[in-house]
Amino acid sequence: MYAPLAAKTHPNVAVPQVSLPIPMGKVAAQTSIDMANARAQTAFDPARIEEVIRDGRIDNASRQKIVKTLQDDEVFADWKLKMTHWSREQQMRMSHLAVRRILEIAHRDGWDAQEAIEAAINLDLQSPLSLHWVAFVPVIMGQGDFDQVQRWGNAAMEHQIFGCYLQTELGHGTNVQALETLATYVPETDEFNIHSPTLTSTKWWAGGAGLTATHAIVQCQLIIHDKRHGPHLFFVPLRSVQDGSVFPGIVAGDIGPKTYGAFAGLDNGWVRFDNVRIPRSNMLAKNAKVKQGGEYVKPPSAKLSYGGMVFIRSQMIDRCGWMLSRAITIALRYSHVRRQFRDPSSTDENDQERSVLSYPSLNRRLLPLLANSYAYILAGRRMRALYEDMAAQLDQGNIELLADVHVASSSLKAYCTKQVVDGIEECRQALGGHGFLSYAGFNGIFPEQLPSVTYEGDNFVLFQQVGRAMLKLAGELKQDRSAKVTATTAFVRALHDADAIRFRAPTAAVEWLRPDVFASALNLRAARLVGDLQAELDAGRRFVDLSWECVEVGRSHAEVVVSTWFAEAVADDAQALGTAEVAWISKLVALNALMSLSRNITPLALPMGTSGAAGLAAYKPGQAILTAESVKALETAIRGLVEELLPQVIGLSDAFGWTDWELSSALGRKDGRVYEHLMALAEGNPLNHKLTSKQPGQYNWNPKAAHGKHVVEWYTQELRPLFSATAARSDTPVHGNGAKI
Amino acid sequence: MYAPLAAKTHPNVAVPQVSLPIPMGKVAAQTSIDMANARAQTAFDPARIEEVIRDGRIDNASRQKIVKTLQDDEVFADWKLKMTHWSREQQMRMSHLAVRRILEIAHRDGWDAQEAIEAAINLDLQSPLSLHWVAFVPVIMGQGDFDQVQRWGNAAMEHQIFGCYLQTELGHGTNVQALETLATYVPETDEFNIHSPTLTSTKWWAGGAGLTATHAIVQCQLIIHDKRHGPHLFFVPLRSVQDGSVFPGIVAGDIGPKTYGAFAGLDNGWVRFDNVRIPRSNMLAKNAKVKQGGEYVKPPSAKLSYGGMVFIRSQMIDRCGWMLSRAITIALRYSHVRRQFRDPSSTDENDQERSVLSYPSLNRRLLPLLANSYAYILAGRRMRALYEDMAAQLDQGNIELLADVHVASSSLKAYCTKQVVDGIEECRQALGGHGFLSYAGFNGIFPEQLPSVTYEGDNFVLFQQVGRAMLKLAGELKQDRSAKVTATTAFVRALHDADAIRFRAPTAAVEWLRPDVFASALNLRAARLVGDLQAELDAGRRFVDLSWECVEVGRSHAEVVVSTWFAEAVADDAQALGTAEVAWISKLVALNALMSLSRNITPLALPMGTSGAAGLAAYKPGQAILTAESVKALETAIRGLVEELLPQVIGLSDAFGWTDWELSSALGRKDGRVYEHLMALAEGNPLNHKLTSKQPGQYNWNPKAAHGKHVVEWYTQELRPLFSATAARSDTPVHGNGAKI
Repeated sequence: MYAPLAAKTHPNVAVPQVSLPIPMGKVAAQTSIDMANARAQTAFDPARIEEVIRDGRIDNASRQKIVKTLQDDEVFADWKLKMTHWSREQQMRMSHLAVRRILEIAHRDGWDAQEAIEAAINLDLQSPLSLHWVAFVPVIMGQGDFDQVQRWGNAAMEHQIFGCYLQTELGHGTNVQALETLATYVPETDEFNIHSPTLTSTKWWAGGAGLTATHAIVQCQLIIHDKRHGPHLFFVPLRSVQDGSVFPGIVAGDIGPKTYGAFAGLDNGWVRFDNVRIPRSNMLAKNAKVKQGGEYVKPPSAKLSYGGMVFIRSQMIDRCGWMLSRAITIALRYSHVRRQFRDPSSTDENDQERSVLSYPSLNRRLLPLLANSYAYILAGRRMRALYEDMAAQLDQGNIELLADVHVASSSLKAYCTKQVVDGIEECRQALGGHGFLSYAGFNGIFPEQLPSVTYEGDNFVLFQQVGRAMLKLAGELKQDRSAKVTATTAFVRALHDADAIRFRAPTAAVEWLRPDVFASALNLRAARLVGDLQAELDAGRRFVDLSWECVEVGRSHAEVVVSTWFAEAVADDAQALGTAEVAWISKLVALNALMSLSRNITPLALPMGTSGAAGLAAYKPGQAILTAESVKALETAIRGLVEELLPQVIGLSDAFGWTDWELSSALGRKDGRVYEHLMALAEGNPLNHKLTSKQPGQYNWNPKAAHGKHVVEWYTQELRPLFSATAARSDTPVHGNGAKI
Repeated sequence: MYAPLAAKTHPNVAVPQVSLPIPMGKVAAQTSIDMANARAQTAFDPARIEEVIRDGRIDNASRQKIVKTLQDDEVFADWKLKMTHWSREQQMRMSHLAVRRILEIAHRDGWDAQEAIEAAINLDLQSPLSLHWVAFVPVIMGQGDFDQVQRWGNAAMEHQIFGCYLQTELGHGTNVQALETLATYVPETDEFNIHSPTLTSTKWWAGGAGLTATHAIVQCQLIIHDKRHGPHLFFVPLRSVQDGSVFPGIVAGDIGPKTYGAFAGLDNGWVRFDNVRIPRSNMLAKNAKVKQGGEYVKPPSAKLSYGGMVFIRSQMIDRCGWMLSRAITIALRYSHVRRQFRDPSSTDENDQERSVLSYPSLNRRLLPLLANSYAYILAGRRMRALYEDMAAQLDQGNIELLADVHVASSSLKAYCTKQVVDGIEECRQALGGHGFLSYAGFNGIFPEQLPSVTYEGDNFVLFQQVGRAMLKLAGELKQDRSAKVTATTAFVRALHDADAIRFRAPTAAVEWLRPDVFASALNLRAARLVGDLQAELDAGRRFVDLSWECVEVGRSHAEVVVSTWFAEAVADDAQALGTAEVAWISKLVALNALMSLSRNITPLALPMGTSGAAGLAAYKPGQAILTAESVKALETAIRGLVEELLPQVIGLSDAFGWTDWELSSALGRKDGRVYEHLMALAEGNPLNHKLTSKQPGQYNWNPKAAHGKHVVEWYTQELRPLFSATAARSDTPVHGNGAKI
């Protein structure tokens, strides 16, 4: 009745398709027409944008090659679909199989490690392989001395061993100084004694530690001759590479399933050490060292080992933008082809219903999230570049960029991760009822992205650090108006310098669209909030009690950074992008900035306080930065931008380059055939078929046998006895099979 | 080493406990001391509050009886813990077992239907049983005529049959008029022909339809002699009660897993009809009827069947408050006993770290959610009472209350469900890393509550209805200042009547704490937003294009309703609650109201527009309702309330009455022993043990065998070959078991 739905993948893998003889009908037939129409009116070349923005961790050609290899592979062709049906235990088991298979393919096709990791990411698989490369290998390479890199680094990079990084404990995470695991130097044997003294010292959370890792880097309190030297890193063998048994003195296991089914293929683990001895040479010794006999050699500079923390955060910004881009692609595609309610002015029952995306209550929610995706991807590219510059400087012993990169990466990490987590769920909730199905494709997005608000520094702790940095800068500028600022911190000067930010409150929507206008407004808001924070300190409150006020300072700072870097990134790549492409992305730059202003307009609309506030130099007490008319014009400007962008959003989301296999979403299908695909998946749903095998992952996914007339195998076991018992007790029992009741 | 962690439940069910010989340590030992201290300083009686607020669907004694029965039952004692490990297929199968077991216990102990449903709810089980009672039985009782209630109602209430309610389709949900399933009258045989003409007409989503239901109520377009009469309800047998096979002409199945693992025990289904004939007497005939030969008899009043829609929404308000109360109980307990970082002024390393709840960045997030829980529970009780009054009136043919109850229930449903969904995740994110474990107990809360923003009317569609109602009222009041208003809509009068709301902008925090002050401010804000909405219409925009503006109108209206009813409910139950209890809950009333104001202060702080706006009668153009000082005082008032409430939050969350078995959360344990419990659960985690059985639900949960030294069964199958292959390719192969690398 239809052409097959999916592109041909591996010949051994069944393609979900509708097998029941069902007439299509007008509503379902319209979806692919609507999608084709949207593409026909796209005013730019999405592929050109894709080429530029996808050039990230690896280049776009390599990415496409990996995706194609996976979606054609016998093991991986329907992997994501199966994953939604596996239990935690099945997923964990399949994760080991996937790791082995990825490395087989990598060997066969000559992929490098970066490509193998990309493959795991593309499978939505937080696997022991990813953690080995993200957490174990870099620590050895970055903190080990030359001999240690030779001894362990090569074996790790060749996957002869699998490692994990044991830092956080049951009792402590963010507060690294309070970790309890001990590494006590034993002069008699020139060894360290690794020990877990308490329940709360149990190492907890490390990915790969639960069932997989053969070796670990362990963060321990170094103790020499009863003197504590604080946390240091040690290399400790955990399990036999031959049979997986843990070595003597060690107990370990998986800490249990994660919330909402996240990270199911990753064995986050707990590990305890009972006086385990390791050689002195197993302490990572690039910086601090312990000599034979116990002499402790301090690291040359504490700040030199500081770059690692900044590294991971600086990599998270575009990554979370990409996660949001998956959700928004699904949401825009489905909302475009989904039609509900005719226009109220229509009187003909045969008139088509309206695309739900045409309703402001939907498009005003979704289009800003499209803008955010672009913003975080492109600002994230600038973040990476800035990190590279800083790392190059650090290698020369130059720490000039360190403070600024630290603040920017903290601020963006704390802000963007939360925006993205909320934005992904907003996309899903915008899908209506069908968004609540696993087949909508959000299991691989939201739960996986959720912990980003916690790991690598809890967002609220990071915002506090941003607040502290802003106050420090404000203090320096108060002393010396020529103190050094950067493009993303220069706004602080507006506290003391009336000319630092030139701004006239817009009186019409069109003024708000000018980049200098929205940039100045964002900067003024951030400056005012720093002033308000300073005023609280001046009024005698302690900084430790201002952690709540720091949150809004941090958000506003982050919005300055995102907006600035997003615009810079578009300008930098203008040539490669092309004129039409730049024009449309520039509207997203404006939308992102105006939505950031709209998120919290009060500091701009509220008159300056009359008493005690460290207000902005350019404004008198009682004076507000914006008028009521400016605020109304901002709303009008946002509405106008959304209406202008609306016909281009399918093109703008196509430009992210997601394939149907990657999205694994019945609602986010590129061809718009959402209803056929939902039906095909529901027919194939294993619950609707007799299990043919007890092996994990072996479901009877055979559309040709799916006639929707099966009986669940346990019906007669549970329900039949129930009905018999209730009928036997009844004065008016139901007779026969109940067809004639 | 410790006293056992859990209360003794069923003798055949193993209690999770730490079996490894692990010293407790200071950090873990402190948690139960901290919790006991918090209870010792509670200034009121939590049990007294519990008695009052738990008196809901069923009385508190019945509720406690049910909980005790379940937690002592062999099947249910560790049900919730096992549920986090089961696959969708296992959970669905176990759901049938649970339904049968609940009904066995109900028969044994003489529970009524309400108590059986309460039992299913307490198991976090969205089961075919719940849907049978919530969706199938009420429709028969409410829409069937006397004979139909006799024929089907009794069999359904005795559980001789299981039913489902088939309304939504693959292509349409909210837009009921556009449903495609046909019921065509066949005069020759005096039957209806039920038919699914298109792909998108496939019935979709109905709970219980996938694998369980024997009979269905089906919403179809009634067609008689080629004339369409719109959607009507029909009783259609689906499956044999004897063996579960679907009857001829019907195909059906489960639509697949739900997002984030939600509703796993519920078989939401798809059903198609291929010209299925049913007798004419199977059309539900309390209101509309079809006579032999095809004469159509209209219902006496369309509005009389309208109460059903309002019913479900009016029941959702306190229910979602209770869901939030679970999350906030867990969050407050864990945050209280979790200590991180010493006070910055401390110089002694042995000083205790601070409870994380003492940090404003945490308590400013959590305490408002405690206030929200109380607000929605108590305002929800008023909502139920108002519904009862309306239903009693409707039975008399009086529709006086209908419009107001409809608007209030739409507004509260749309507002509270979203606040609760966001609030639950906020609680989880506030738990730090451990909040990301399933054992934190959020799998039974967040995913289960998520679809409430969509079902029973998408929130954004409902907000639009609220906006329309407010505009209508504003128009009536413009014509006639004495037009009828209620306590929760009287604010609209402020548009035209300068004396409608008396208010003076507070200049100090203490003024904000006065109930008349925060109430007036909430009402003024709602009024201004209605005025702004009217101004957009006056400026020529169509109502259908104002759906976005309606959202904020709806939220502000809902905040007026919640605040008003919350305060009224406390006053109503003052005697039963007691003086100290009322005093503390009244602080939550204030906190809820002030946070509602703070959520969007701009309409109060922004001067009235100078052109075209339909402003408030009491304010001149250019005049704002609040000064900058008022806004700052509001922030100070909130901070003060939070600080005052902080020592009482353990007591205030105890008052919800949740048991450890109900919460099933290692972090939310009443005794505070969170670290021991996490360790015990991680030891018992089935992944850390050899499977002893292939039966679903049969895990080797035996703490005494849990020594943390197991080897996963498939290690040698996947990882061993991987290590052999990589070592074979290496120039520097790892030898032996890798212990000496």
